[in-house]
Amino acid sequence: MTSNTTGKQFTITTFGSSHGIALGATIDGCPSGLQLTNQDIQEELDKRRPGTSKITTQRKEKDQVKIISGTFNNITDGTPITAIVYNKDQKSHNYDNLKNKPRPGHADICWQKKYGIYDYPGGGRASGRNTIGHVIGGTIAKKILNKHNIITTAHVIQIGNIKSESIDIKEIKENINKTPVRCADLIAAKKMEESILDIKKKGDSLGGIVEIIIENVPLGLGQPIFDKLDGDLAKALMNIGSVKGVEIGLGFKSSAVTGSKMNDEFYIENNKIITKTNNSGGILGGISNGMPIMLKIAVKPTPSISGKQNTVDLENNNITEIEIVGRHDPCICPRITTVAEAAVNMVIMDHMIRAGFIHPDKL
Amino acid sequence: MTSNTTGKQFTITTFGSSHGIALGATIDGCPSGLQLTNQDIQEELDKRRPGTSKITTQRKEKDQVKIISGTFNNITDGTPITAIVYNKDQKSHNYDNLKNKPRPGHADICWQKKYGIYDYPGGGRASGRNTIGHVIGGTIAKKILNKHNIITTAHVIQIGNIKSESIDIKEIKENINKTPVRCADLIAAKKMEESILDIKKKGDSLGGIVEIIIENVPLGLGQPIFDKLDGDLAKALMNIGSVKGVEIGLGFKSSAVTGSKMNDEFYIENNKIITKTNNSGGILGGISNGMPIMLKIAVKPTPSISGKQNTVDLENNNITEIEIVGRHDPCICPRITTVAEAAVNMVIMDHMIRAGFIHPDKL
Amino acid sequence: MTSNTTGKQFTITTFGSSHGIALGATIDGCPSGLQLTNQDIQEELDKRRPGTSKITTQRKEKDQVKIISGTFNNITDGTPITAIVYNKDQKSHNYDNLKNKPRPGHADICWQKKYGIYDYPGGGRASGRNTIGHVIGGTIAKKILNKHNIITTAHVIQIGNIKSESIDIKEIKENINKTPVRCADLIAAKKMEESILDIKKKGDSLGGIVEIIIENVPLGLGQPIFDKLDGDLAKALMNIGSVKGVEIGLGFKSSAVTGSKMNDEFYIENNKIITKTNNSGGILGGISNGMPIMLKIAVKPTPSISGKQNTVDLENNNITEIEIVGRHDPCICPRITTVAEAAVNMVIMDHMIRAGFIHPDKL
Amino acid sequence: MTSNTTGKQFTITTFGSSHGIALGATIDGCPSGLQLTNQDIQEELDKRRPGTSKITTQRKEKDQVKIISGTFNNITDGTPITAIVYNKDQKSHNYDNLKNKPRPGHADICWQKKYGIYDYPGGGRASGRNTIGHVIGGTIAKKILNKHNIITTAHVIQIGNIKSESIDIKEIKENINKTPVRCADLIAAKKMEESILDIKKKGDSLGGIVEIIIENVPLGLGQPIFDKLDGDLAKALMNIGSVKGVEIGLGFKSSAVTGSKMNDEFYIENNKIITKTNNSGGILGGISNGMPIMLKIAVKPTPSISGKQNTVDLENNNITEIEIVGRHDPCICPRITTVAEAAVNMVIMDHMIRAGFIHPDKL
Repeated sequence: MTSNTTGKQFTITTFGSSHGIALGATIDGCPSGLQLTNQDIQEELDKRRPGTSKITTQRKEKDQVKIISGTFNNITDGTPITAIVYNKDQKSHNYDNLKNKPRPGHADICWQKKYGIYDYPGGGRASGRNTIGHVIGGTIAKKILNKHNIITTAHVIQIGNIKSESIDIKEIKENINKTPVRCADLIAAKKMEESILDIKKKGDSLGGIVEIIIENVPLGLGQPIFDKLDGDLAKALMNIGSVKGVEIGLGFKSSAVTGSKMNDEFYIENNKIITKTNNSGGILGGISNGMPIMLKIAVKPTPSISGKQNTVDLENNNITEIEIVGRHDPCICPRITTVAEAAVNMVIMDHMIRAGFIHPDKL
Repeated sequence: MTSNTTGKQFTITTFGSSHGIALGATIDGCPSGLQLTNQDIQEELDKRRPGTSKITTQRKEKDQVKIISGTFNNITDGTPITAIVYNKDQKSHNYDNLKNKPRPGHADICWQKKYGIYDYPGGGRASGRNTIGHVIGGTIAKKILNKHNIITTAHVIQIGNIKSESIDIKEIKENINKTPVRCADLIAAKKMEESILDIKKKGDSLGGIVEIIIENVPLGLGQPIFDKLDGDLAKALMNIGSVKGVEIGLGFKSSAVTGSKMNDEFYIENNKIITKTNNSGGILGGISNGMPIMLKIAVKPTPSISGKQNTVDLENNNITEIEIVGRHDPCICPRITTVAEAAVNMVIMDHMIRAGFIHPDKL
Repeated sequence: MTSNTTGKQFTITTFGSSHGIALGATIDGCPSGLQLTNQDIQEELDKRRPGTSKITTQRKEKDQVKIISGTFNNITDGTPITAIVYNKDQKSHNYDNLKNKPRPGHADICWQKKYGIYDYPGGGRASGRNTIGHVIGGTIAKKILNKHNIITTAHVIQIGNIKSESIDIKEIKENINKTPVRCADLIAAKKMEESILDIKKKGDSLGGIVEIIIENVPLGLGQPIFDKLDGDLAKALMNIGSVKGVEIGLGFKSSAVTGSKMNDEFYIENNKIITKTNNSGGILGGISNGMPIMLKIAVKPTPSISGKQNTVDLENNNITEIEIVGRHDPCICPRITTVAEAAVNMVIMDHMIRAGFIHPDKL
Repeated sequence: MTSNTTGKQFTITTFGSSHGIALGATIDGCPSGLQLTNQDIQEELDKRRPGTSKITTQRKEKDQVKIISGTFNNITDGTPITAIVYNKDQKSHNYDNLKNKPRPGHADICWQKKYGIYDYPGGGRASGRNTIGHVIGGTIAKKILNKHNIITTAHVIQIGNIKSESIDIKEIKENINKTPVRCADLIAAKKMEESILDIKKKGDSLGGIVEIIIENVPLGLGQPIFDKLDGDLAKALMNIGSVKGVEIGLGFKSSAVTGSKMNDEFYIENNKIITKTNNSGGILGGISNGMPIMLKIAVKPTPSISGKQNTVDLENNNITEIEIVGRHDPCICPRITTVAEAAVNMVIMDHMIRAGFIHPDKL
């Protein structure tokens, strides 16, 4: 299979580029019987939309979405759902000076060399704008998962060197929308916001860490040996631009504890088998064990920074300088939470059908 | 597609379980024209084989492999290559007391509940022994990649709290086979070995970190948006039992640096465009950029420990105790290096065909 | 993988329904470097467009296509190509009386029962209009195949009981556009046209046989054992609505000849190994042998006929009558030639990449 | 995906060649909970086994099968099932004179040119012996389908010019095992047998037609647009060596009837919606409609005939003669019935899971 489609039973195919005519996605394998309107998708898109606060890019895209297939009287009918967002605020000329001059930290050079022809304005299809497709697919997945009480929450736990305190999941869900950084520790959130505004003034950028929690996943998701649930989640998250690391449960910390500390002891609570700790992060041997799934992703600082940088001119192979003048996020972490939730929800939805928890044809 | 097959153009299907009749793998999509003998695979299998040093499990398996299809006069002919290892030293009775009593940190409970019937001796197909299949596939990939000068090296950089010093790749390759822990820092290696023997005496276990370096990957591997090279590598590595985290390049450290530090500046050396630093770990936007690919994986301590542990009896849902008496590795890191190399080589091989660097039908 | 996508290296995902907002397709795996405009696709769509002659349905759809992604300055850039046709002349009310009353010979009852919710106007996604997607994908395939001198020609050889004489391929290509029935035997074509107009008056319909010839396919396409070239072609053709049979080479006639007659003798002509006869139809053991590929498909008469028919009311399971008043083709054969060419070209294109004749990333 | 695997939810990967070490198959996606022994598979293999009557090849293979993974105490446990048949009666030297001399009607030349290296004894992997894999997979599918009352019956209806009378399905099932030709019309069967013995004496071969009937398939199998049930069945059947045509329902005859004759009228019988006729062959718009599925395949005469034939010597591109001295079936139709049943059962099983009729993980 080609690479703009992902999933096996619940699949998404995305298309479009940053400064092209449109972006969109086709979701195939969505069971019939789900109520679905433009507005459902619009609400999620608005969360990742640029230009909504001082700490995001000032590109003014309404990102208005329209479903053009797959529903009948606003109910999914088992046919592929296509939704489209037309680009409105492209300013391609901002990128004229970048033609043939690959931006450090960006994939420009890779696309240019791999395909020969490169839609360079705004990074073309390599732009973060392609995650509009993820959000379209993720919204549909989320609506179905919510009916099964499965809730995915992504929140920022670190920006640069500022870390949030550990907070209870209930409080996280209450707090994440209270500040533009989507950090539930409101004191840390304030500091994070300030540090983002500060780095923006300096023309530089920051990275951070996002935690994703998936509650109420039933025991039994994940297909060994090669489609383990953590394998598929790791891939979906690493596929998001700027992500440089993925952890499940204790993650890298597990390398420094002993087995007797790491192992999660089984016991019974309310007639349900659970574990006392959750160091495994809800997955054992690639199969969900019924505990909350806990993931962390490392997000690198936005590569688009406004100072001068050295690079190579691909036309003559000479060293040259570039200055990036487009509109960019000084820190992508807050907006990436929406994309991470979407990516994760699509994986969980796919595995819910694959493991027989959701009927493949109709709800 | 079902889950015991992975890859798109170069695929592997594995089968078999720890204490069943046999384990093996079928590789499909291997171009014709490769010299391949049992001995080629045997050499790699011997690296992951148990019972070769004091720090590994004492299960005595020769793991003798036999190719039963796919070659003609010891040359691959474009048909699927199947290779088999028959189990010899099964001691299934060691596991009789574990029936219906899931071992903490293991997938027993997940398999039992998901499938109803569970081949519990030795963890059945969830056992690390299923990675024999990985090594079969990885060996074939490696032989072809080596012709393209692509070299994958996995080495241990941390066991428990003992970390190796940073060492040059040339020295790593020279040193890793000098000690049983496969750590190139020979001083740290000695300490690691001692700490493994120490924890073994205590009936406990250790985890660690393995770094994987892939040299000479050409620019252009990786298929955006959903089969990015780092996405596929993360999945392949996370799919290995005991892996709890994957990093590329700076990994989680990238969350705390600024964009101006993170970005790798392009320049020219010997008429080749390279980057001054390699914080991105050789992949930008999911496509290899020609620099070495640098990955790290977090390996949890072996869940099989010899002390008493609490668990639940699945027959009556009562709390019970278990004691694991099988033969196990006190630390899986040294042996996991071979499996990680195999997993990574299969991904690179698959993408070499996908990106048109290797002809799909014949070498 | 879900079912609205087909192909492995050159894939097409289609979406949309007869009376919905739009229909379209996303082509993934098209190498970069192909000149491609809306007009290229429009020309092919115009061939399958309804309302162009007295013998086709009178639905007046302009079927205007617009590419919204995948090209940069009218050249493919390796990203997914999406093209859309908005529906204009829907008359959904024509179908109000058919709700819950499945039309004989149509898939209404299957969709209704399978998915619960059924976009019944015009047959929804089961309508022949969904082949707009095929033609979008087929056009792109055709443009690339033509560069390799591969030419696909579909022509009508039978309508009802009227059969065309056997005609040389050169003459076929000259004649097929001279009459609306797309039959190259101009005398038979005239009779076919009359018989279609005649059956239309009677409110009934006709079927026929279409032959597809693919010239200049190189030896080596087709991947045994389960993706043989004839297997993939048979599937692609049988997947077209109304097709009830597929033959390759001698087809069903091969059941009544002896092996000594059937076998195509090899010999040399102009330093090329060819066969004296072509009973195998250009494929041996699932692999193209360099001879023209010869296929035939059986097309059933259009199930939409205007007389009264008995059926079952799905609301109360009573026998009822229906009368179909929409606009329909009295014989689908002439228009199906365009769709068959598209379907076949997509398969050949997919296999050209798979067998290494076309680079997967760039032309 | 590579080409030695087929299916999406219930998949089979086959391997091995005619004169190699072994042949076999791995079935993935078989739910846990099915009783399965070597003997189950052996019984089906014995039906396709050579050397069982005067009208089949005299190669004496016991084709003894052994399951080496996927069952625990003779019950499937959700892991991949691998079964192997070792070759015993290879006489590779019979083929020495055929090296580089492609046999007319065989795929020798295609494999030789495509892969460069060709396992030519007995046609290597292109041999009909590779259908041992089909039968392994088909047996497992059949065992599960039978629990759902789905019964597949393949029987010979024509050999050369001898056609059987139309016979009721009940009688077909009673009669097919009464004669070696697997034709239920016992009078025709006798004539067929004689004509096969006669053609064998002449050193020539015969083809024929096999009909496949699948009873009790529920309404709703088949996934439009590109995995229609008839599309998948056509592919599976065309993928069998020697098959040159596939029909469903009226097949090619549907091209010459009118719509009013072709359409199958719906009515009610025993509270079930059925059709009065079954011209569509049980599938409408790619989805099963609950009626018996009726297919026909055209089988070409065995290309291995014993007289002298002209061909080309691939070493020097000169015309040369060959004489095939191996042991071959004068007519493959009787043995192909078992393979056709297997191929069809795997498709139906795959679609039963895909449409949610069978749970993907456990029975």
